[in-house]
Amino acid sequence: MSKVFGCDLQLRWSDQDVNGHVNNARLLTVIEEVRLRAILAWGLEAPRADEPRVVRSLNAVFERPVHYGAGLDGRAWVASVGRTSFTVGHELLQHQLTCVRAEAVIVRLDPSTQRPRPLEDRMRTALEERVHAPSVDISRSATREW
Amino acid sequence: MSKVFGCDLQLRWSDQDVNGHVNNARLLTVIEEVRLRAILAWGLEAPRADEPRVVRSLNAVFERPVHYGAGLDGRAWVASVGRTSFTVGHELLQHQLTCVRAEAVIVRLDPSTQRPRPLEDRMRTALEERVHAPSVDISRSATREW
Amino acid sequence: MSKVFGCDLQLRWSDQDVNGHVNNARLLTVIEEVRLRAILAWGLEAPRADEPRVVRSLNAVFERPVHYGAGLDGRAWVASVGRTSFTVGHELLQHQLTCVRAEAVIVRLDPSTQRPRPLEDRMRTALEERVHAPSVDISRSATREW
Amino acid sequence: MSKVFGCDLQLRWSDQDVNGHVNNARLLTVIEEVRLRAILAWGLEAPRADEPRVVRSLNAVFERPVHYGAGLDGRAWVASVGRTSFTVGHELLQHQLTCVRAEAVIVRLDPSTQRPRPLEDRMRTALEERVHAPSVDISRSATREW
Repeated sequence: MSKVFGCDLQLRWSDQDVNGHVNNARLLTVIEEVRLRAILAWGLEAPRADEPRVVRSLNAVFERPVHYGAGLDGRAWVASVGRTSFTVGHELLQHQLTCVRAEAVIVRLDPSTQRPRPLEDRMRTALEERVHAPSVDISRSATREW
Repeated sequence: MSKVFGCDLQLRWSDQDVNGHVNNARLLTVIEEVRLRAILAWGLEAPRADEPRVVRSLNAVFERPVHYGAGLDGRAWVASVGRTSFTVGHELLQHQLTCVRAEAVIVRLDPSTQRPRPLEDRMRTALEERVHAPSVDISRSATREW
Repeated sequence: MSKVFGCDLQLRWSDQDVNGHVNNARLLTVIEEVRLRAILAWGLEAPRADEPRVVRSLNAVFERPVHYGAGLDGRAWVASVGRTSFTVGHELLQHQLTCVRAEAVIVRLDPSTQRPRPLEDRMRTALEERVHAPSVDISRSATREW
Repeated sequence: MSKVFGCDLQLRWSDQDVNGHVNNARLLTVIEEVRLRAILAWGLEAPRADEPRVVRSLNAVFERPVHYGAGLDGRAWVASVGRTSFTVGHELLQHQLTCVRAEAVIVRLDPSTQRPRPLEDRMRTALEERVHAPSVDISRSATREW
């Protein structure tokens, strides 16, 4: 079983901004799409009103511009699993080069109180089987000197 | 001179996702809008083809859900100024409560090589005058235990 | 009682496309926003899962480009009321000049069968009170010779 | 040579609105994407600053809701060619059923005056070779009785 989920993604002409490349906030919508597809591929479900799951935090590094008109590959993996949350790592690649790396912390909520609640056993097991340590540390490069 | 830029923002019904609140990736588009308005208010210019400026990294913490139908306030400030880049802090508030905090590192590029180049003196001066240490440390809370 | 609803709208920098003006498909999201605000102002409710209402058709004419950085005014009115549907007219103006005109036919659906069902009496009354014949005929100009 | 261009399209989870299906204004962004791909496939170019082409009008009929999670097919064809403009027909299908039909009138502009100017001969020839009369008349069904 590969621990890293992969998929190909389609960009839209309108994803570009006035700078002529894909807008960086829009790339985070694409990152969200990679994560959703990974979660479904891992046998889990999309968040629902009675089973809410929210993004608690997001860290992203934009290594290279992404261009409309070329293929785009997405990757996602489980970076870690906590008591009420888990962390997903993501990568977008064009021409085999990493363009965007991102980590999102996802929290399971209690639908009545909207407060964090422990992950279900089935979900925890499915996520822990896929924990993967990426070769590049996002937090370090995001703050490196320019 | 206030070091923190403030503005009111309009949400759109379509900013909501199937969870019934404003989509978190869409909130980063709203954060981008706050930053653009701040940059114009600070006497600087929007990025252009011959004066490119890109988001190098983005860290965001989603404290509370944002709802369509209530007002939304945006704040932005300069968190730090480097040689070729600067960091902007942002906050979105609803009902006087912080919902989203985000930091973006913006890099000035050389239009021919697309590599970082030193900030112009005029820009550096305008940014340094507004450096503001936010009362809350984003990086710490983003990784705190749940 | 004015039959035409009016509001001011905020554009976002990211609403622009590579052509440097606001993307025309995005303007239809702005048109949707004007309609939602009008419907709430008219004392009606936003569509819900148990009270679905869908756009059946949309006709839009783009008279002039819309630019980020200037104010944008929206107008909406009830153009006609049918048995199971009603037609809303919309206009977007910048610098007092009409930039976009659009008409949308909205149909009330039965939530179980997803087929059209008669408008509720209260809704019909509220809509009929606001029927307004716009001075310009959208359908004619949309097909005029260029 | 087939006169109808076809392609498969990817939806994004975030294309859905609070009603649980793909937002209808967003579907017009998808329609725009089909047209762009068709224009490139026909050997023409995307609009540029020095060769502007704008959407003058758009008529769309939403026959059936579009759902995330199923495939989506796009079709586009040239419906007619005028002196300074041409009309593109579009269709979106899911499970082999037409969900959206749309027609857009595209005008070539003079970049200095922003007024319509005659289509180039090469473009006219390429478009006229692909004129295709769709089997369904959009304008008629859009206004049919409900």
